[in-house]
Amino acid sequence: MPPMMKLFYTPASPFVRKCTVTIRELGLEDRVEIIPTKWPHSWGTETVPYRADFLAATPIARIPALVTDDGECLTESSLICEYLNDELGNFRLCPQSGRKRWHVLAAVSVATSGILESLVARRAELLRKRDASQNKQEFSPGFVRKMMERIDRCYRRFDELSHDFHGDVDLGQIAAGCACGNTDFRYPEDDWRALAPNLARWYERFRQRPSMRATEPGETPFNSDDAHATAGHGD
Amino acid sequence: MPPMMKLFYTPASPFVRKCTVTIRELGLEDRVEIIPTKWPHSWGTETVPYRADFLAATPIARIPALVTDDGECLTESSLICEYLNDELGNFRLCPQSGRKRWHVLAAVSVATSGILESLVARRAELLRKRDASQNKQEFSPGFVRKMMERIDRCYRRFDELSHDFHGDVDLGQIAAGCACGNTDFRYPEDDWRALAPNLARWYERFRQRPSMRATEPGETPFNSDDAHATAGHGD
Repeated sequence: MPPMMKLFYTPASPFVRKCTVTIRELGLEDRVEIIPTKWPHSWGTETVPYRADFLAATPIARIPALVTDDGECLTESSLICEYLNDELGNFRLCPQSGRKRWHVLAAVSVATSGILESLVARRAELLRKRDASQNKQEFSPGFVRKMMERIDRCYRRFDELSHDFHGDVDLGQIAAGCACGNTDFRYPEDDWRALAPNLARWYERFRQRPSMRATEPGETPFNSDDAHATAGHGD
Repeated sequence: MPPMMKLFYTPASPFVRKCTVTIRELGLEDRVEIIPTKWPHSWGTETVPYRADFLAATPIARIPALVTDDGECLTESSLICEYLNDELGNFRLCPQSGRKRWHVLAAVSVATSGILESLVARRAELLRKRDASQNKQEFSPGFVRKMMERIDRCYRRFDELSHDFHGDVDLGQIAAGCACGNTDFRYPEDDWRALAPNLARWYERFRQRPSMRATEPGETPFNSDDAHATAGHGD
């Protein structure tokens, strides 16, 4: 039996979900041990207590973090998905080279740096208002607006890109699906479907895939005092 | 003559510098047109006017952005460097597969997500205090502290990793060198050399490479009114 990889996890993180959907699409569930993490709401504005094994694995202290069979720690969701696809997945979710590879990875970037990071940064900013231990005046409405405008631009781009989403599942579609799912989870009032009607039609089918149904987001256990709490990337 | 790639650029951005150092190390200077961008200090908390060609290329509206010969737009520095290495550089700065590839790309992540993003997020937070148009009370000292603690952890990790930095230049070393360079540029008071003495010794040699000397950071032209201003990732 091959050694187990370890994936540091929360059920709410869309970055983690990119990895767990990829693991399921590649049939690697038996190769990866899922390590749950907990974190307090103050993660946005302070270093919180980390599990020792988490901090030993990653100095960035963000989830997801994947420890490979070789003991290498990968700490960005896009890199983790590339690793799973390239080294263990026989390139089934993204070709090894050529124009199509970079088209897929460019879509991963728009979903990840464009939508997911903006959603999480927006939430971290809003948590500055919510957390009673924070000074509410640290909150910047302008920053939240900037994130929302970036998200809108990226949804419009995905409406174009999604016209090519009829083929086999790939890493770009997985990232886009996790973006749609996290927007619905955290901001159900956001009307991204009006900006991206073609993407919305695609997503209604895509979200029914077993890999997506098995990974629907849920709140991460809140934990403010537990010495084993690990604060991650956020949300 | 092959078509020219376009790289949207500022002289201050360490993310851009990862790309320009990689371009020089691979001898691709003649293949890439550098497109300068300008941006106001308010980039951290508002959407600012963008050049039309920049916004057409990238809905994320962050620098760097590379438009390839195929017209694909890549908008993350690590992905751009991978593209240059894999498609145009014959894998000279990172092998195509195997343990060494993921070790190099893991180091790229620690430098990029761990140090560079934290340096830029810290600066964006500090600019909330400096910019007269902003409400100074939007500033969170806790957030800045959290970024500084992450940076310190990553420097300690690089002190270990740099014991393997004696071989040929690779993408991990380039990213680490840009992290050291940006820390010195923006935060000369930060004593990262005390946390990472082995890295510091390596960096004294590495910074002398022609690719590093030709790309030393400088202030990006400040521009608050110019209609061609493009705000990017920030600094």
